[in-house]
Amino acid sequence: MWHYGCMQTNQTIETLLKHVSVREFTDEKVGDDQVELLLRSAQAAASSNFLQAYSIIEITDEELKEDLAALSGDQPFIATASNFFIFCADLHRNEELMIEKEVNISQQLEGADAFIVATVDASLAAQNLVVAAESMGLGTCYIGGVRENIVQISQLLELPNFVYPVFGVVVGHPAHRNAPKPRLPLDAVYSENRYNPDTIETMWEYDEALQDYYARRAREAARAAGEEAGEATPHRSWSQGIAHTFFAHPRRFMMKFLNRRGWLRN
Amino acid sequence: MWHYGCMQTNQTIETLLKHVSVREFTDEKVGDDQVELLLRSAQAAASSNFLQAYSIIEITDEELKEDLAALSGDQPFIATASNFFIFCADLHRNEELMIEKEVNISQQLEGADAFIVATVDASLAAQNLVVAAESMGLGTCYIGGVRENIVQISQLLELPNFVYPVFGVVVGHPAHRNAPKPRLPLDAVYSENRYNPDTIETMWEYDEALQDYYARRAREAARAAGEEAGEATPHRSWSQGIAHTFFAHPRRFMMKFLNRRGWLRN
Repeated sequence: MWHYGCMQTNQTIETLLKHVSVREFTDEKVGDDQVELLLRSAQAAASSNFLQAYSIIEITDEELKEDLAALSGDQPFIATASNFFIFCADLHRNEELMIEKEVNISQQLEGADAFIVATVDASLAAQNLVVAAESMGLGTCYIGGVRENIVQISQLLELPNFVYPVFGVVVGHPAHRNAPKPRLPLDAVYSENRYNPDTIETMWEYDEALQDYYARRAREAARAAGEEAGEATPHRSWSQGIAHTFFAHPRRFMMKFLNRRGWLRN
Repeated sequence: MWHYGCMQTNQTIETLLKHVSVREFTDEKVGDDQVELLLRSAQAAASSNFLQAYSIIEITDEELKEDLAALSGDQPFIATASNFFIFCADLHRNEELMIEKEVNISQQLEGADAFIVATVDASLAAQNLVVAAESMGLGTCYIGGVRENIVQISQLLELPNFVYPVFGVVVGHPAHRNAPKPRLPLDAVYSENRYNPDTIETMWEYDEALQDYYARRAREAARAAGEEAGEATPHRSWSQGIAHTFFAHPRRFMMKFLNRRGWLRN
């Protein structure tokens, strides 16, 4: 599925194409020099109108890390990673600066566009950090689960208005890497000049491909654990995963929470 | 400001740290093989619960490209780039699939969390495309301006509900590259275990550093154009840029538009 024939790749593109989320880490710590490079890489990302509307909070306190792992949808593996960064969309800093300059931007801050700007800024910075980490041979995983108990997590991190945790990113030395997951057929996500509404057929085929992938992964895990691959258990397809996600994580509180923190009011 | 001493970087990290937005391109086209690698790199990014909630629309029709350059806050340079990709947050595909499976997720789709998920997915994919392009020596620029006339642009691209254009990305062979812009001091965006509210002092210093950067850039541009560097004109500081941005692009229509397209209703 992933043949590049005679196309000329390079180290960076190979790093990108090999991406997998890693949830099992060794005890080895990531060095301080490496962490600094990760953070500098994050900062080097583009930023909408150069607002730099994000903040990165690293959880270095082990007890807090365990609390946050539990609050992030009960994912204990988070606390086993060397580093846990929480990426926040942040317009508080810009607001403060404008208050000192006596420029009133509160109406703009409360709008949906400002919310997009800050969410995108946090995402671009995070993806740079992830790519930098993977280029060093480290493993990473995004933790959307920091939004699972967003009220408590925001309190613990003492986040002011116009700051919300978009996701976390854990980084560490991988103890295990899965094979890269097959993506949707390119034609399903890419089109020219206008939106392509006719992709549903390709998706059912993809659904099966992903089911096969998970079955293969389960067989390999069983083999690695020295177990016999037992009866063929049914494995989740892509569409089953989608249904599960929406029902398992509805996060109905999100709009109310964001409104209370200043966001998305107009 | 950007010394890495004896830290061990690699090709990828050097690519990330050298990032600058490019707005001047040569006539040379980016090859089809390269474009495919860019798109595969975009697809390889992480995705929240693997929803793959984004679409990429490339504008290959030259007339449409010029129209969109005008609609994107009147930025004619967009049409001079080899490739113009519009990244959309897209939960329409997931919705269609759930309709076929007779699973009703409309309440979840209308929530703020789904909006975050899709916006982040589009952003991570785009940043991978940008990093891949820069690793090939190409230049890129994010075009937040696609949200400037979001109603017309969504019509032109025939976007259904639960699809909105987050930003564009142009890619081409750079005719000119500025020096990388200095970022905020690391301590202003990074803290441990809790949010750091005391960053305003470091920002005034940074404000001057950025003013110096723009002055230097203007002098270099004048020199390159064979002009004498005239009177020292005042250059924009970071805080002036912020004030300008919020007043020049308030985009007050954004929430109403998104609501009409299904998003952010609860």
